[in-house]
Amino acid sequence: MMALAAEELRGLGASVSLVGSGSQQLPDGQTLPIPPIILAELGDEPEKPTVCFYGHLDVQPAAQANGWLTDPYTLTEVDGKLYGRGATDNKGPVLAWMNAVGTFRALEEDLPVNIKFILEGMEEAGSVALKELVAREKDGFFSSVDCIVISDNLWVSQRRPALIYGTRGNSYFMVEVRCRDQDFHSGTFGGILHEPMADLVALLGSLTDSSGRILIPGIYDHVAPVTEEERDMYSAIELDLEEYRNSSQVKTFLFDTKEEILMHLWRYPSLSIHGIEGAFDEPGTKTVIPGRVTGKFSIRLVPHMNLSVVEKQVKQHLQYIFAQRNSSNQMAVSMVLGLHPWIANIKDPQYLAAERAIKTVFGTEPDMIRDGSTIPIAKTFQDIIQKSVVMLPLGAVDDGEHSQNEKINRRNYIEGSKLVAAFFLEMVQLQEVAGTSP
Amino acid sequence: MMALAAEELRGLGASVSLVGSGSQQLPDGQTLPIPPIILAELGDEPEKPTVCFYGHLDVQPAAQANGWLTDPYTLTEVDGKLYGRGATDNKGPVLAWMNAVGTFRALEEDLPVNIKFILEGMEEAGSVALKELVAREKDGFFSSVDCIVISDNLWVSQRRPALIYGTRGNSYFMVEVRCRDQDFHSGTFGGILHEPMADLVALLGSLTDSSGRILIPGIYDHVAPVTEEERDMYSAIELDLEEYRNSSQVKTFLFDTKEEILMHLWRYPSLSIHGIEGAFDEPGTKTVIPGRVTGKFSIRLVPHMNLSVVEKQVKQHLQYIFAQRNSSNQMAVSMVLGLHPWIANIKDPQYLAAERAIKTVFGTEPDMIRDGSTIPIAKTFQDIIQKSVVMLPLGAVDDGEHSQNEKINRRNYIEGSKLVAAFFLEMVQLQEVAGTSP
Repeated sequence: MMALAAEELRGLGASVSLVGSGSQQLPDGQTLPIPPIILAELGDEPEKPTVCFYGHLDVQPAAQANGWLTDPYTLTEVDGKLYGRGATDNKGPVLAWMNAVGTFRALEEDLPVNIKFILEGMEEAGSVALKELVAREKDGFFSSVDCIVISDNLWVSQRRPALIYGTRGNSYFMVEVRCRDQDFHSGTFGGILHEPMADLVALLGSLTDSSGRILIPGIYDHVAPVTEEERDMYSAIELDLEEYRNSSQVKTFLFDTKEEILMHLWRYPSLSIHGIEGAFDEPGTKTVIPGRVTGKFSIRLVPHMNLSVVEKQVKQHLQYIFAQRNSSNQMAVSMVLGLHPWIANIKDPQYLAAERAIKTVFGTEPDMIRDGSTIPIAKTFQDIIQKSVVMLPLGAVDDGEHSQNEKINRRNYIEGSKLVAAFFLEMVQLQEVAGTSP
Repeated sequence: MMALAAEELRGLGASVSLVGSGSQQLPDGQTLPIPPIILAELGDEPEKPTVCFYGHLDVQPAAQANGWLTDPYTLTEVDGKLYGRGATDNKGPVLAWMNAVGTFRALEEDLPVNIKFILEGMEEAGSVALKELVAREKDGFFSSVDCIVISDNLWVSQRRPALIYGTRGNSYFMVEVRCRDQDFHSGTFGGILHEPMADLVALLGSLTDSSGRILIPGIYDHVAPVTEEERDMYSAIELDLEEYRNSSQVKTFLFDTKEEILMHLWRYPSLSIHGIEGAFDEPGTKTVIPGRVTGKFSIRLVPHMNLSVVEKQVKQHLQYIFAQRNSSNQMAVSMVLGLHPWIANIKDPQYLAAERAIKTVFGTEPDMIRDGSTIPIAKTFQDIIQKSVVMLPLGAVDDGEHSQNEKINRRNYIEGSKLVAAFFLEMVQLQEVAGTSP
């Protein structure tokens, strides 16, 4: 896949390097080489702005037996929808960017901007090795970059385009409760043990109330207060609640209004319990008292929550709850993953350029939205190379990334390609305006 | 295994039939034949008592890679201990019974009792097909049986033999909480859902307090009160708490005294949470909000708890807790397994015979104990064929049934064989005493 993309980019006239990125050890001990990362460049004229596009070519697993109506690895058009694994996440958008570049070449027009591509093949596996490369290339590949554009999310609507100016972070916790390493038979030991599952269930049950509010003391202290301006932005977003309920197959959400729902997805923290490792998880019945169990939960972080403060609050809370139980088991809490939230300044010129390009291509203002998920690479770019990031999604809300029957609409793919080209043109115009101002 | 045992029994002079028992469908759809059940008989002299031995020849899985110090399928003696899968559960005891019969033959002495063997190969898989056979043979194979003996449990000590007069029952529950069938991404949906895991954790957390006490209203109503006589029996049992703690690798139990510990294992109910199906249970991290999860727990039942009352109490309690949460998810509770507790009358003559035989062979009174586990076949025999059951364990407490490095002590195996022979003789003596009494 990486070689194919490199070939395409060379065909567009780019100078391309495939950067080897070492190998990865899987949990089963197997060692696999990491796909090389593509760094490609078209143009280096100092008077032009330099736009860097980040995308990925790896995909989630897919098997037709798993509920796909078409072969997931053969792009199939049905009623204006292009079905296939990776159609929207993220191969389709990568192609839209290549199309935009290709169009200028086909028209024998000069590219209005210098363009760089950074394409990886490990995004779905946590972008292993990307951070190191970005740090290494800070003063090389990235030194001339003015802004980075990512098209790896979706609109919030089926029809109306969007611009994304923030993503939540994530802090992932594991809490282990251990009596002994082996399991017990519930007939032989049931009744005389502090059972690890009972402790763990009490710990996990102390994290939220039935309305989803996080009960960890202090956790909301650093959440940015909602401003009037922000409230207006949320009201302006197009979201058909009925359609949203239907498409997500959820009868009732915790909140009733569009504004509350979106704010709780984007600008408030949330806590989800993912599961338990070490307990009986198979179908059927087993009369086991698990001897050591690990609960897994994570908190989505928003500005201005601080990872290390959250870590401390969670640990203190769980230690307090555990101490209350007077259990003879051992408890251990660790934060195994910590990703900062990301937020952009929507007054930055590249946001203005993207907004104008959207108006040109789609004839409408974009929804100004956030993403409740974490796109760690955005924060990485922002932190390491200190360049601003724009998220310019091309796919629609119902594209089904990570699901069966993933698709991108023909309209989104074609207009998306135009949007990228329009964005190039707007970037130049903005630079010219800036250049002529005093 | 069944054919080998049948051959052995024929060698002892028994008439043996191997009863085909149909087939079993595995969860994956595969159909496997059920091993035939052995019905064997030695002697049918009406003036002699008829003793029926129940045993099983199937074993738990075992792999040397899993922590065995010797090949689990090659019997290996180390320091007077005979290691091998099935050594104590239940092949060793089955052999001890064959040895006892064989000894009378080798000495060219008449068997003092008529003996029947019922041996199955599906005990570890829930004795599939056995119940039907027992019901079918009620007036056939079992009609002349005076008592049934099971040697499928362990002593409570490493040295002192025991007689078992009761086992707990079990009621196994599944509680499902469902939002939708597919999982959610915690970034995309975290914050606006009644998360099924949060509901389930609250439900499971409402079942017991931190001291192990069951919080389901009414659950203790039918538990038999402790009598003075019973208290004395518990005091007389030999149990070295320090050794018990060490061998079970549990630092601290819920209770501090021998009497409290044994009563909570044997004559009080207990509730254990086994695990959750449908949540993330693998190593590593996954940011999933499970869409449908099933919690599994069971309650060990004691006299005179009633299965259908317990079922009702559990359902009402969970419905109450769930209603409190005001969740938009669906909850469904079902009792998927219900096994009655079993208790014998220790004044029955066969208990007296067993007690005397133990005194003859081991020179000591037995511990009069119960088993916290469920041996459903005991209740089946009692209920269907209405014959009394004796549990005459031959293995020591540290034999490690179901664990790595399962063993039976050479002493237990040899003296156990003698014990069975002595039991035969005592049965006759008791009958003679009964016969001469007015």
